[in-house]
Amino acid sequence: MKSAVFSIGKEIVSGIVLDTNSTYVSSYLYHMGFDNRFILSVDDKKEDIISSINFVFDKVDVIITTGGLGPTFDDITLESVAKALNRKMYLDKEALDFIDNFYTRLYDEGKIDSPGLNEKRKKMAYLIEGSKPLKNGVGAAWGVHVEKDGKHIFCLPGVPKEMKPMFENEVVPVLKSLTNKVSVIKEIAFGINDESVLGNFIDKVMKSHDVYIKSLPSGFDNKLMNVRFIAFGKNQAEGIEKIELAIKSLKKFIESNR
Amino acid sequence: MKSAVFSIGKEIVSGIVLDTNSTYVSSYLYHMGFDNRFILSVDDKKEDIISSINFVFDKVDVIITTGGLGPTFDDITLESVAKALNRKMYLDKEALDFIDNFYTRLYDEGKIDSPGLNEKRKKMAYLIEGSKPLKNGVGAAWGVHVEKDGKHIFCLPGVPKEMKPMFENEVVPVLKSLTNKVSVIKEIAFGINDESVLGNFIDKVMKSHDVYIKSLPSGFDNKLMNVRFIAFGKNQAEGIEKIELAIKSLKKFIESNR
Repeated sequence: MKSAVFSIGKEIVSGIVLDTNSTYVSSYLYHMGFDNRFILSVDDKKEDIISSINFVFDKVDVIITTGGLGPTFDDITLESVAKALNRKMYLDKEALDFIDNFYTRLYDEGKIDSPGLNEKRKKMAYLIEGSKPLKNGVGAAWGVHVEKDGKHIFCLPGVPKEMKPMFENEVVPVLKSLTNKVSVIKEIAFGINDESVLGNFIDKVMKSHDVYIKSLPSGFDNKLMNVRFIAFGKNQAEGIEKIELAIKSLKKFIESNR
Repeated sequence: MKSAVFSIGKEIVSGIVLDTNSTYVSSYLYHMGFDNRFILSVDDKKEDIISSINFVFDKVDVIITTGGLGPTFDDITLESVAKALNRKMYLDKEALDFIDNFYTRLYDEGKIDSPGLNEKRKKMAYLIEGSKPLKNGVGAAWGVHVEKDGKHIFCLPGVPKEMKPMFENEVVPVLKSLTNKVSVIKEIAFGINDESVLGNFIDKVMKSHDVYIKSLPSGFDNKLMNVRFIAFGKNQAEGIEKIELAIKSLKKFIESNR
């Protein structure tokens, strides 16, 4: 299964904030056996979000977005995704109650100056029609899980401490039900430092092994080079076995070169 | 002027490596006054690279890619970009001589086992027809600068210690000649912690000031909230003045709320 990860927000595309959310989600996806093909960081522009979602929609099975669910003017992820999927927005009564209580509790605790709802708070209760709301255990903005044409789109908040529990509790179980594979990633060092030679051996091993192999050059002053092996399998053991066979084969080629 | 930044490589989309290259390049672009709209991380798949370049081509003026210029099977950036731009590849004689000398010098220094050229090394001398080669002061793979339909495409290596000097020495001077703007970014704290209230004041200030303003919530236990101001100007002074006026205006709104 293929996937794409989005991070939405000017702070990412302007280089102010390093996009650790996408790395976190992509790494999770990859370990669960998804072939993650794209990470797209997009400015808070409706037309850019819509065209980017449309761009990947036919190319992947799962799309996960982070960012743009909050109360401010530039929090436009849900309405943009809805537009891309040709869905309407609706006011979710349960989300509205949750937000009302959320701010009233903060007010009662003396943390903010006004209780209940206002227009900006209410905005976060508008979700995508036909979606499953994803509850937020930390902040006010709920996420959504939308299915369309057999594809799964998850929209999550951008604040990492809100995004991560929502992803792990609400999204990971669904993803696990979609895939029957895992990936195994292993890096080991070989006594060769020249990609232009090692590359030929890697090409040969990859032709006869279902393993992705990538040399990781660290400069020619180092006599060793790390090599990364990635294999998908129906379980960890199968992935590990594939990688161990590929390592043996690569070692033979390197030794025959001596 | 608008721009898009690409990082090409499975290590990024699989979440193994945090994409610091794109943040570095995007931050530079933004400070030079470019409106960077996309960061796209793409797997080493020819069709994905081609479709991604095509996706942003009409949307931006400048495209900068990092990664995929080396000697191995998955280093396919230049041939993919050439295809997207409908250009052919050619063997650059000067690049070939450089690569020949590069590996011969390493061999003479006892760092690698074979001098001169081989097929994988030669591969790096194939550049995009009609491009300006960008010399690599650290590694073997040269970059390129291609112009097409008034747009500028720069392809740089993925290894940061090769990419950064090439970007700063070969790309930044060209970019500076393309833009007559700079951006100024400033963050300051305000005595308000609720985006759903502050957001209304920000909306009002943004209507009458040419400044992008973003609240940065850090939780309701904190009574302060940082706010980020971004302004473009023909020079630093103009950007700073715009931001100072916007800050004054925002302070007034917050005070009038007390």
